[in-house]
Amino acid sequence: MTDYKKDFPLLAGSDIAYLDNAATAQRPEAVLKAVEDFYTKKNANPLRGLYELGIEATEAYEAARERVREFINAGKTSEVVFTRNSTESLNLIAYSYGLTSLKAGDEILISIDNHHSNILPWQMVSRQTGAKLVYLECQPDGSYRDEDMEALVTEKTKIAAMPQISNVLGRRNPVEKLTKLVHEKGGVIVIDAAQSAPHIPVDVQALDADFLVFSGHKLMAPMGIGVLYGKETLLDAMPPFLTGGEMIDSVSRESAVFAELPHKFEAGTVNGGGAVGLQAAIDYLMNVGFDEVRKREELLTTRAMTAMQQIPGVHIQGSDKPEEHNGIISFTVDGVHPHDIASILDAANVNVRAGHHCAQPLLKHLGVFATARASFAFYNTEEDIDRFVQNLKEIRRKMGYGE
Amino acid sequence: MTDYKKDFPLLAGSDIAYLDNAATAQRPEAVLKAVEDFYTKKNANPLRGLYELGIEATEAYEAARERVREFINAGKTSEVVFTRNSTESLNLIAYSYGLTSLKAGDEILISIDNHHSNILPWQMVSRQTGAKLVYLECQPDGSYRDEDMEALVTEKTKIAAMPQISNVLGRRNPVEKLTKLVHEKGGVIVIDAAQSAPHIPVDVQALDADFLVFSGHKLMAPMGIGVLYGKETLLDAMPPFLTGGEMIDSVSRESAVFAELPHKFEAGTVNGGGAVGLQAAIDYLMNVGFDEVRKREELLTTRAMTAMQQIPGVHIQGSDKPEEHNGIISFTVDGVHPHDIASILDAANVNVRAGHHCAQPLLKHLGVFATARASFAFYNTEEDIDRFVQNLKEIRRKMGYGE
Repeated sequence: MTDYKKDFPLLAGSDIAYLDNAATAQRPEAVLKAVEDFYTKKNANPLRGLYELGIEATEAYEAARERVREFINAGKTSEVVFTRNSTESLNLIAYSYGLTSLKAGDEILISIDNHHSNILPWQMVSRQTGAKLVYLECQPDGSYRDEDMEALVTEKTKIAAMPQISNVLGRRNPVEKLTKLVHEKGGVIVIDAAQSAPHIPVDVQALDADFLVFSGHKLMAPMGIGVLYGKETLLDAMPPFLTGGEMIDSVSRESAVFAELPHKFEAGTVNGGGAVGLQAAIDYLMNVGFDEVRKREELLTTRAMTAMQQIPGVHIQGSDKPEEHNGIISFTVDGVHPHDIASILDAANVNVRAGHHCAQPLLKHLGVFATARASFAFYNTEEDIDRFVQNLKEIRRKMGYGE
Repeated sequence: MTDYKKDFPLLAGSDIAYLDNAATAQRPEAVLKAVEDFYTKKNANPLRGLYELGIEATEAYEAARERVREFINAGKTSEVVFTRNSTESLNLIAYSYGLTSLKAGDEILISIDNHHSNILPWQMVSRQTGAKLVYLECQPDGSYRDEDMEALVTEKTKIAAMPQISNVLGRRNPVEKLTKLVHEKGGVIVIDAAQSAPHIPVDVQALDADFLVFSGHKLMAPMGIGVLYGKETLLDAMPPFLTGGEMIDSVSRESAVFAELPHKFEAGTVNGGGAVGLQAAIDYLMNVGFDEVRKREELLTTRAMTAMQQIPGVHIQGSDKPEEHNGIISFTVDGVHPHDIASILDAANVNVRAGHHCAQPLLKHLGVFATARASFAFYNTEEDIDRFVQNLKEIRRKMGYGE
């Protein structure tokens, strides 16, 4: 296997089996270098300065936008808005589209496996507009049934929210099917691609997505940069969310004329360094290639699950097929609190997450209060998996249970 | 004079006289190094991971918050919220405090020299609540008269918004006086410290500020990190603004219990790298010391203004006293468009801003549609100023005017 860890200073310089990639990825040297280059060679306030340095900063920022457009196959750069992270992108949609488009009697359809960030903003919209929240429930393996979607999507469904890949179960959702149903009834779909964009090709036109969001930091970019994709017709009709510098044409004492897309939604000094870092991360990822990413993640997931399924007392949430996990394995160990699982694994330098994974409605639906979660990236190795599995085998004994 | 440019890779590696510091500062090596250290040694999702790396990321993030608390002398870290920039901080106040506290009949007092980011959010609040916008006008030198403030602050004044230092005129405003008046009538004050925090000591307790905001990027930190200070009693009573991961105690299908301050206002993955960069920037600035910063900026401003006042056709906005400019000089040249001023100076590697500086109401009040603006930092040199002045002298001739 190709050694990708050498490109990642934190991994190359330590003995850590980092298996919390669904929370945040590690950063390759190329990304850190790109950000440093921006600050040491092009640093000025993008979109403002009329001098050479300012123009270079602007060009770097807009080149990053074009790279993102290409990455998700958006039709135009005006449909690509830089935000801080997926959470801000989703809140922008909720405040700017949700609050202005919904009313009492309307419904918001939320798949139960959404991250809190695609639930809480809709709870706010529901409270303020009177629109009703309707939950689409998954099967124990995480799958959604066509008949459930068909029954719940009606003319009342103005918004449907679904993650392309669940951050707990790793399952890839039928967003294409849900989108088609929602569009037939005249609603819009909000696709959370935070867990999918780093792992599978995302094509907003093929998906016919109305809105789609993802975070840079899960895709090896610096923290503090994210993306909102929206269809131009929708974004055009929406009022700005945050207001301030550089998103206006003119301002009088009483009112303002707002700028064109995408700047209408990018108030204040933009994150030029973050955008350039995201561009470098996409470049790096595309250089590895999704075929390789998929192949390695599936190999690692299969290796882990096959071993885990042999360990007494270990239970994997969701599908029992590795290819339906997209590198994410949430699990429990009989009699051991997930926090203890994470701590014990940490003692062997294996990093996994434990808790509710910001998906409490799903966990309650699945009948668990918390899980441990191991999540893989293409730069993980078979040795990482083996160390994880080996230490997982010891956990019940270490906690005082017999064999 | 101490050579600070050697600490700033972009300045050390070029021949640029960077005089657009009010738009964004340059970054010292120490800041870039701190960010790189975070990503190569402590990178994990702060506030989440139970493993050593995650705990180190959390500790680094919270240590940055403590450094900011100390920097602005806030009483508690719970009063320090990390945002993306000043603009987001101000929008947070407007959405979360403004929309929920104001009603028709109330007034929002806005000093005319505010940046758009402290005007537009209040226009939104006014439209949605029916509260009235009232403008406090400055004198031609940028000063505010006590009698105007006393006349306009009434029991109706629920919010007053003022920059501590104007981003156009550089003048330090009587925020203490306005705060006192507003408090006597039961209102709250929103102080925009974006232009002051990098240049003068800011003490939120001495100011008795209710809310105060500033941006990291104007203070040598990376883009994408900013600060909202709010009094605990106010922040505690406010609903969250953005909702999503890591700002909740629990989430059910219909509602959520939100986390304690400051996390209630920090939805989604936080900008750990940005916060650590801001901490390093504050450390660097404090190591230089505000005495030195003030001394150098005043020396540079005096040198520039004294020379500019001798150039025929050049007009400086605001006060004619250098010590009342805090390193910011907005000016016009008879018969020359400000954009041309910036372009001509750029040809000599002198970077100044031209335009409305996101302060159109002030410019209209002053009777100009645009200005050029030179803004200094402590790392600028007398050579920077001399090159600026020398080329400014040539501008009218270069544009075809006689002597």
